[in-house]
Order: sequence, then C-alpha cells, then structure tokens
Amino acid sequence: INIVILPGDGIGPEVTTEAVRCLELLSRARGLGLRFTGHHFGGAGIDAHGDPLPASTLAACKAANAVLLGAVGGDKWDEAPIRPEAGLLRIRAELGLYANLRPARIYKGLEDASPLRADLAQGTDVLVVRELTGGLYFGARTYSDEAASDLCSYSRPEIERIAHIAFHAARGRRRKLCSVDKANVLATSKLWRKVVSEIAAGYPEVELSHLYVDAAAMALVTRPRDFDVILTENLFGDILSDELSVIGGSIGLLGSASVGGDGPGLFEPIHGSAPPLAGKDVANPAGAIASAAMMLTELGLPECAQLLTVSLERTIEEGHRTADLGGTTRCSEFGARVRDNLR
Amino acid sequence: INIVILPGDGIGPEVTTEAVRCLELLSRARGLGLRFTGHHFGGAGIDAHGDPLPASTLAACKAANAVLLGAVGGDKWDEAPIRPEAGLLRIRAELGLYANLRPARIYKGLEDASPLRADLAQGTDVLVVRELTGGLYFGARTYSDEAASDLCSYSRPEIERIAHIAFHAARGRRRKLCSVDKANVLATSKLWRKVVSEIAAGYPEVELSHLYVDAAAMALVTRPRDFDVILTENLFGDILSDELSVIGGSIGLLGSASVGGDGPGLFEPIHGSAPPLAGKDVANPAGAIASAAMMLTELGLPECAQLLTVSLERTIEEGHRTADLGGTTRCSEFGARVRDNLR
Ligand SMILES: CC(C)[C@H](C(=O)O)[C@@H](O)C(=O)O
Ligand SMILES: CC(C)[C@H](C(=O)O)[C@@H](O)C(=O)O
Repeated sequence: INIVILPGDGIGPEVTTEAVRCLELLSRARGLGLRFTGHHFGGAGIDAHGDPLPASTLAACKAANAVLLGAVGGDKWDEAPIRPEAGLLRIRAELGLYANLRPARIYKGLEDASPLRADLAQGTDVLVVRELTGGLYFGARTYSDEAASDLCSYSRPEIERIAHIAFHAARGRRRKLCSVDKANVLATSKLWRKVVSEIAAGYPEVELSHLYVDAAAMALVTRPRDFDVILTENLFGDILSDELSVIGGSIGLLGSASVGGDGPGLFEPIHGSAPPLAGKDVANPAGAIASAAMMLTELGLPECAQLLTVSLERTIEEGHRTADLGGTTRCSEFGARVRDNLR
Repeated sequence: INIVILPGDGIGPEVTTEAVRCLELLSRARGLGLRFTGHHFGGAGIDAHGDPLPASTLAACKAANAVLLGAVGGDKWDEAPIRPEAGLLRIRAELGLYANLRPARIYKGLEDASPLRADLAQGTDVLVVRELTGGLYFGARTYSDEAASDLCSYSRPEIERIAHIAFHAARGRRRKLCSVDKANVLATSKLWRKVVSEIAAGYPEVELSHLYVDAAAMALVTRPRDFDVILTENLFGDILSDELSVIGGSIGLLGSASVGGDGPGLFEPIHGSAPPLAGKDVANPAGAIASAAMMLTELGLPECAQLLTVSLERTIEEGHRTADLGGTTRCSEFGARVRDNLR
C-alpha cells in the first residue's frame, strides 16, 4: 500500500511526521505493508518547483493508494503568482475529490475546553459532508481593478453524488441528515434542495431536514448536539465546518477526508499551517493522527483505524495537552504517547 | 415625520405594535410629531394583493421618512409563485439600502443566557456592516431541473461606499475594523480586499485587519470580544451576523438598520416571523424596540434614541424575560415595562 505524504508548509511537516510514525508502528505490528514517500506541495512546491502542485507530486499522488497532507500556506507566499492554496484546489479537482468529510466531536476529558457552555457542548458529534469540487470555488471568474465576479453553479449529478455520500453516512450513524442551503435566495440552492429531497426517497430510514445557512450558523452554536450529519455545498461547508470545529476546544484535534474519485483519497487535519508555531515542536498532531485513522478506514482497514482512534482518545483522556489546549506537551511527545497506547 | 409600518407576518405585527407604542409615547412627550401608517408586506402582501411588495406599499415607503418592519415569511407561502422574502430583497434594492448595520452585544443581566462560556462572551459588542444590495443576492441566475447558477459580482464603487460606512462607524466606536472575505479563492473577494485596503488610507485612526470568512466563523465563537466593526459582503454578512446574534442569549433582542439610499432607511428586528408563536403574545419585542431606537438615531434624534435604549436596557436588567429567554413576561407586558421606564 503506497501512501504519499505531502508535509506542506508551517507545522505541516511536524504533525505529519507524528502521524506517519503511528502508521509505521501499526504497519509493522499488523503486517500492513504501508510504504511512504514524501513530495513537495503548497508553498514548499512553489519554493522547490515554482508550482504549489508540481507535476511530479501530482503524478505520485495519482499512483498512490492514499495521500496524507499536512497543511499549506503562509504570508511568505502572499505575493507569489500562484498561491499555495491554488495547489489545494487543483489537487481536489485532479483527484476528483468531491466529498469532504469533516467530523467534529467533543473528546472525553476536554468537555471544559469548549468555548460553549458545557451543558450545550456535551455530546456533540457531527459529521459535515461538504461538496468539494463545485460551486463558487470552481466557477468562471472575471477580475479587473473596477469589477470582479465569481460564478456559482451546480448540476443535478453533482448534487446527487454528494447527497448519496451523505445519506449513506447518516445510515451508518444516527440516521439524521440536515441539508443546508439558501433556497430562499439562490437558484443553486433551490436545485440543491429539490435534488436532495428526491434522493431522500432511496433512504427511508434517514430523517431529512433542511435549514437555511444563516439559521444553521446560529444552530451550531445554540444546539450543536441536535445534528448528526450535515450536508452542504462547498462554500457553506467551508464556513460551517470551521465554525463547528472550534466547539471541541481546538481545531488542532480534528481530521478530515476528501474522497469520491476513482483514485486515492486525501486526508488532512483541518488546521492551517500556523507559520509562527512552525519548527518549535509545539503543534498538536492529533488532527493529523485523526486524519491517518480516517485514511485507514478508507483503505479498508477499519480495525486498525479503530485502534489508532482509541489510542488517540486515551492519550487525550490521560491529560496530555499541547499548547493549543493550554498544556506543555510537545508535538513529538504527544505522538510518542499515542504510540505507547498503540502498543 | 412620516413612518411607514410594515408589520409583515407571524409575530411581526405584535412586536411592531409594542415598538410603535414606545415611539408614540416619545413623540407625545417630546413633540416629535411622528405619524404612522401601516401597509401590507411579505406574506400579508401576497394575501392582500398577490405581491409581497404591493405597489401601494412601495409608494408609501418611498414617500416616508423611515420604514419600520416586523418580519416576513412562513411555510404558508412556501409554494407561492413569489415568496415573501422576494419582497424583502426588492424593497432593499428599490430603496437603495446597500448598508445593513447589525449590532450584537451582551445586555447587562443576560450574561448567563449566552451559549458561550461567560468568560468568553462577556463584554462582546460588535457591529456587523453587511453589504446589502450586491453579490450573490442580486446576480443573474439560471435554473433548470438539470443545472442552476448564481452570479456573484461586485464593482469598485459598490465596495467603496460600504467601506466608507464601515470605517465611519469604526471611527465612532473602538476604531477597529475587520474586513471579512475569501480572498484566497474568490475574485470578488480579492477586489474587496484591495479596495477596502485603499479606502483605509483615508481613515488612519482606524486599525484595519482582514480575515477569511471561515476563520471569522471560528473567531466569532472563540473570541467575539476582539471585534469592534466587521465589514463584509452580502452573503457572508447574512451568515456571520446571524452566528453572532445568538451570543447575546436570544435573537429576539437585536435590531438592525438598512440604510444608504437617498430615501428612508428600513429598520427591523433580526428575528424571523416565528409562525408557531404568532398571536400568542409571547414574542420578544426587544428587537423591534431596538430597531426603533436605531431609526430615531437615523432620523437625527439621538437623544430620543438614547432614552429608548436606556429604557430597554433597564427593563432587561429588571429581570423581565419573555419566553425566548426562559421567562413568562408577555410581549405586551414587556412593551409596557419599557414604556414605564421611558416615563
Ligand atoms: C485554504 C482554502 C482554500 C481551503 C478551502 O476554503 O477549501 C480551506 O479553508 C479548507 O477548508 O480546506
Ligand atoms: C429572508 C432572507 C432573504 C434575508 C437575507 O438573507 O438577507 C434574512 O436572512 C436577513 O438576513 O435579513
């Protein structure tokens, strides 16, 4: 099993290193035969090849079974002709990764770390299913000094396929799906609501509801526990999944999976590259490790994924806290504790 | 001074009634000469004239000094050929109301009502300045059963004028302006950031910062106190102002002003029509009363606005709580207490 590692920028290399060490341990113990090769991506791609997604990196990703990404971006490349983020959008499109899965939950032992009142936050466990290769992110653009435009478009098949992913996920969870749109204003949202409602007929055991995006932004703060799976389009998913991600106490804790193409999936922590923290061994590798667990599930190794998840949960329960959670545990130390628990 | 009242739908009529009674009292006591006339709007406009914004209503609004709106919408009109919300978008456009001001704060006595931890919520006092007549809300649309699209566009003058409003507001407050966009992806956001940065040169006393919309969605939950004025485009403003609005404990508390045209401004509570609560005298009229206070300011009557605001604050401090805040005070009773405090 070939896994491409894209450490990327900022704290990306540190956190992916810890995740890879966990995967290596599992691979040896269970004879998984995981093989890792690193490639330049993002700002690192720009520095090395003048391109955030160098051709060699893309070729390696296409040939791999899965891709584990750290983080991309940084002020350093703000004036670059192509920015690191462009590489992220391109790799999503090139690999056909139309489904972005972003789970958010409250880890045991971290109930008090939430910015929400503990009584509201407790028990929150939501999966955001975000459409990732359509909408405003990939529409035609115009730009001049006097005016600019971005086109948001969605076709029926684009909505159908992501809806199936979300209903499928809901079926394996608490069977509630909330589709978020702005159907009282947008044409794309009107179609979104229509198609999602039609697809619902094939999943009678899943309870479907609809919410406008503004109402959803409120509900995630006032009653996050009421949600099981949230299905939404690209930009709304970007905003709402980030809003939700802080409820658990730190965005450093969460992983994500981007899937749906014929080739490999892409797995990455939801946090950014955090340039000021880079190279200091203070980042939280939990998000990268959680992403590695999602990768194992996608690779058809759910027991290994479960082992890694439980080890991560235990490490948090034991009270090991990196700086983002007010603690002093180093990135490398946290990774080592997860591996202790894996053994 | 002629004021058009658009009670609208659901709880709209009840809450505007209380606000108008406060305004009448002030008008008599201070000889303001306020005159009120009610008109159909929203679902009520559809029922009476087959149009959410009947011609007679629009004409009356255009001739008025200010418009006070209750709320629009309800499931009842979900299948109507034109929905109530369309009337809202049209009146914004017809009156040229490109600037939507949405203050959010924690009222004294309601510190514990916030869904956020009290230590994070305390002291929050933010003004969202939302562009209201551009972007995806007013772009060209296409719709068929197979595909749909919405166009987001912004011109330089559209960005300039709303930026001036926001810098101006910041100058009268704590002199911090955070502009929110998605400049790492969208062309309109790139222009937005550029133009806002240019306009900043005329306001050297205001400290300008920029945040991506996803990061802003996080920051409003984790550190709302850090914000003074937030400037953003139409759809981001819809989402973020609603997210922020729940931090004070109830959306029933907040008012808004839509201004910028040559004619009257439009003032409305940010809550919706809440059909299940309609006619039960249980709605919170605080948002409508706060909107009336914003109207008085815009009409050049800041002392009267201040009087009304202080009376509202006192009523809340005295512990009167409508159902949205877990209390049993009726809508009419709450209004009466505000008027007691006004006397
Ligand atoms: C970096 C940016 C382009 C990206 C996005 O908006 O998709 C990021 O915010 C994310 O959510 O993965
Ligand atoms: C009703 C709807 C069209 C409207 C909007 O999105 O602008 C509302 O949510 C608001 O914020 O005033």
